Amino acid sequence: MTGVPMTFDAAAARIMTRCDELAAISALPAGILRAYLTQEHQRHNELAAAWMAEVGMETWQDAAGNQCARLEGREPGLPALIIASHLDTVPDAGRYDGIMGVLLGIETARLLTPYARDLPFAVEVIAYADEEGTRFGATLLGSRAMAGTWDPAWWEALDAEGISMAQAFWDFGLDPERIDDAARSPEDLVGYLEAHIEQGPYLEADQRPLGLVSSIAGARRFRLAILGEARHAGGTPYERRRDALVGAAQAVLDVERIGRERGVIATVGQLETRPGAVNVVPGEADFSLDLRAESDALRDAAWQEIHAALAGFCAQRHLELVVEEIHAASTVSCSPRLTRALAAGVAVTGDTDPITLYSRAGHDAMAMAAVTEIGMLFTRCEDGISHHPEENVLAADVALALQALQEAVWVLAREHGERARR
Amino acid sequence: MTGVPMTFDAAAARIMTRCDELAAISALPAGILRAYLTQEHQRHNELAAAWMAEVGMETWQDAAGNQCARLEGREPGLPALIIASHLDTVPDAGRYDGIMGVLLGIETARLLTPYARDLPFAVEVIAYADEEGTRFGATLLGSRAMAGTWDPAWWEALDAEGISMAQAFWDFGLDPERIDDAARSPEDLVGYLEAHIEQGPYLEADQRPLGLVSSIAGARRFRLAILGEARHAGGTPYERRRDALVGAAQAVLDVERIGRERGVIATVGQLETRPGAVNVVPGEADFSLDLRAESDALRDAAWQEIHAALAGFCAQRHLELVVEEIHAASTVSCSPRLTRALAAGVAVTGDTDPITLYSRAGHDAMAMAAVTEIGMLFTRCEDGISHHPEENVLAADVALALQALQEAVWVLAREHGERARR
Repeated sequence: MTGVPMTFDAAAARIMTRCDELAAISALPAGILRAYLTQEHQRHNELAAAWMAEVGMETWQDAAGNQCARLEGREPGLPALIIASHLDTVPDAGRYDGIMGVLLGIETARLLTPYARDLPFAVEVIAYADEEGTRFGATLLGSRAMAGTWDPAWWEALDAEGISMAQAFWDFGLDPERIDDAARSPEDLVGYLEAHIEQGPYLEADQRPLGLVSSIAGARRFRLAILGEARHAGGTPYERRRDALVGAAQAVLDVERIGRERGVIATVGQLETRPGAVNVVPGEADFSLDLRAESDALRDAAWQEIHAALAGFCAQRHLELVVEEIHAASTVSCSPRLTRALAAGVAVTGDTDPITLYSRAGHDAMAMAAVTEIGMLFTRCEDGISHHPEENVLAADVALALQALQEAVWVLAREHGERARR
Repeated sequence: MTGVPMTFDAAAARIMTRCDELAAISALPAGILRAYLTQEHQRHNELAAAWMAEVGMETWQDAAGNQCARLEGREPGLPALIIASHLDTVPDAGRYDGIMGVLLGIETARLLTPYARDLPFAVEVIAYADEEGTRFGATLLGSRAMAGTWDPAWWEALDAEGISMAQAFWDFGLDPERIDDAARSPEDLVGYLEAHIEQGPYLEADQRPLGLVSSIAGARRFRLAILGEARHAGGTPYERRRDALVGAAQAVLDVERIGRERGVIATVGQLETRPGAVNVVPGEADFSLDLRAESDALRDAAWQEIHAALAGFCAQRHLELVVEEIHAASTVSCSPRLTRALAAGVAVTGDTDPITLYSRAGHDAMAMAAVTEIGMLFTRCEDGISHHPEENVLAADVALALQALQEAVWVLAREHGERARR
C-alpha cells in the first residue's frame, strides 16, 4: 500500500464528523431513524444542502424530495456524472449506510471544484431521500423517481399511521402531480457511481479496505400471512386448533433451511400475531420474506421450493396461506467501463488486483441502472455489521475510498474526452 | 333424558333475554366490552341489583364493587351458600361467559324464595365485577377481594389511560381503604357454587349438556425473549447470523410438541420481532407462553422440559434466552362434597353418569377456594368458542343447568341439616 495523501485524510475526518452530526438527526430518543417525508428528512436535506453549497455546488431539492447538487464542467449544461447514495435509514440504524456515500460525493466534488473547467461533464451529487423503504414498505423511492420508474400505485401506500404517500407529499410541501419532474433522461447522464459500505464480512476477511462490485442481487420481497382460527388458549385442545403461529414458525425454519441448502439469502425480518393476546391461540400470523441470490434464476428456484414447503404444511394443518409479492428487482450488472475506472482508482490506493463481490444488499444504483450505466465501490466495514448501531468503518478506509473515487472520475473524464475527440 | 319441567324452560328463556340485555351495555360501538370500575360496570350492577331484588333478595354493592344479594334461610344470619360468577368481559366478548352463571344464580334464588324457611343456610348470589382483568391486567379482582386475598400492590396498577386502581376506586365512589370490608370469613360460608359455559369442546363432542368440574388448572404465564444480533439481511451470511426469530420459531414448535406429548396446554399467543424490518435479521424476538394442565406437577414438569429445550438450542445458536414469569396460580381442586351434590343435580336432568372435566380456564371459584369449598358445573357451548362474539349456548341446556343447580342446593340443604342434627 502507498501512503494516503493528507488531503484525503483531512476529508475523511470531516466525513466521520459529519456522519456523527447526521446521526443526531433522528425520530428516536435513542438510536437513529430518518424516514421519508418526515421532519428528519427536512433536517438532513438542509444539512446536506449547506455542505454541498459550501464546496461550490448549485443545490436544489427535486420533486421527490432528493437533495441534489451540481458542479458544471467546462461549459454549462453538459451531461452529468452522478455520485450518489441516500440519507434515510432503517429504524435503529448505523451511521454510515448510504450516508458515507453521499459525503464521499461531496468531498469528491470539493476536490474537483478547482478543476471544473477541465471536466468534459458536469458532476452531480445526490442525497436520495428514501432507499430503505422504512416508512411505506416500497424501497428505492428517491432513485426510482430520478430514474423515471416511480410506480403510481405507491400514492395509495399507507404508513403505520395510515397516512398515504400522496398526503405525505403534500404535508412535506411536495406536489405528487409533479413527480415526473424528478426524472432524468439517459442523454443527460454520463454514468452513476456509488460508494457504499460493504454490509458484509468479505472485504474484512480478505483484509482489503476496498472492493469492486460486479452486480447487485435483485431482491424479491413477500408479505405472507398464515390464517388459522383464534380460540381460547385454555379451552381448545390441540386437535381442534388451527394455530397460525405454529404454521409461521415452521415457515421461518423452512425458509432458513432452504436458504442454506441452496446458497441463497432468505430472511424473515418481521413477524406478528393476531389477535396477539397471551391467552388466545393466534388466528393470524403475518410475516415478511426477503430473498436474494447471485442470479435471478437461483433466487426464483429457491422461492419455488419455499412456496411449495409452506403450501404443503399449511394444507396439512388446515391453515390458509396468503402470498403477496411486494417487491421484485432483477439482478443488475455494473458497467465494465465504470468498474474499470473504479479499479484504476483502487489501484492508486495500492491494491492493483482488487477483489470483486456481488452486492447482496440493494442500492440506489439498481434503480439508476434504468437510465444510465452504474458502477459501485465497496468499503470494508467492521465485522460486516450494518443496519445496526454498531455499524462501523475506519476513517483510513474512507480516505482510501475518496482517493479511489476522485481518481475514477479523472479516468472517466480522460476517456470521455478521448471518445469526444474520436 | 327426562323432560325438563316448564318452570326451568321459562327461567332459561328469561336468562337468554337478559344475556342479550346485558350485551347491549358495552364500551364498544360494536361488540361487547365491560371493564372494572367503568360506566358499564355501574350499569350492569344496577341491572343485576334490580333483578336480584325482584326475586325477593336483599341487595348491596360491596367494597370492591361486586353486586351482592342475600336470601336468608330459616333464621337470619346463618352461614351462606354462595352462587356466583362475573359480569365483566374481555374486549369483543361473547354474551354468556360469566353472565350465564350470575343469571342462573338469580333464577335459582327465585325457585328457592318460597322455601327459604326450610333452608338450613342463607343463599347469596354474587355478580363479580372483575374476573377477566381486562382493565388492570391482574385477574379475579372481585373474587380476590371477597376471599380476602386482595394484593395491595394492585393499588398502583395502571390502566391503558394511566389511571391507577386506587384512583379508579375513588372515581367509582369506592374507598380503597375499606377493601377489607369485602372479605368474607370461612365460618360465614357453607360453600361456593359456580355454573359456567365450558369454553371448550369436550361436552359437545360427548353430546352432554352438562359436566362436572374436578379442578381448575392454574396457569403459569411467561414473557420470553430470545436475543441475537440485528444485522443486514443481504450482507450477512448464515454462518455469521444470530437470528433471534429462528430461535423463537424453534421455541414455538417445541412448545407445541412438548404440550402435545405431555398432555398439557401450552400456547404462544404473542410474538414480535425487533427491529422488525423486512431487510434486517431480527436481533430480538419477544413472545408469550401460557401453560395449563390438570395438575401443577404436570404443568411444572412441562415447563422444565420447555425451558431446557429453549436453553439448549439458544446455546447452540449463540442466542440469549430471557425468561420472566408474569403470572402463576396453583391448580385448585373442587370439593368432592359439592361435586357430589352437583352430580345429583345433573342426575335429575337425566344424566346419571356425568363426565368430569378439569377447567382449562380460570374462574372466580379459584379465588373463593381460599375461604370455602368450591363446586363448578359446566354447560355445553357451541364449538367450544368463547371470548368471541360467536360464543353461544342453547336455552335448553341453560334450563338443564338451572334444574341441576337448584337440585344441588336441596341436596346440600338436606346434608347440612343431617350434619347439624348429628
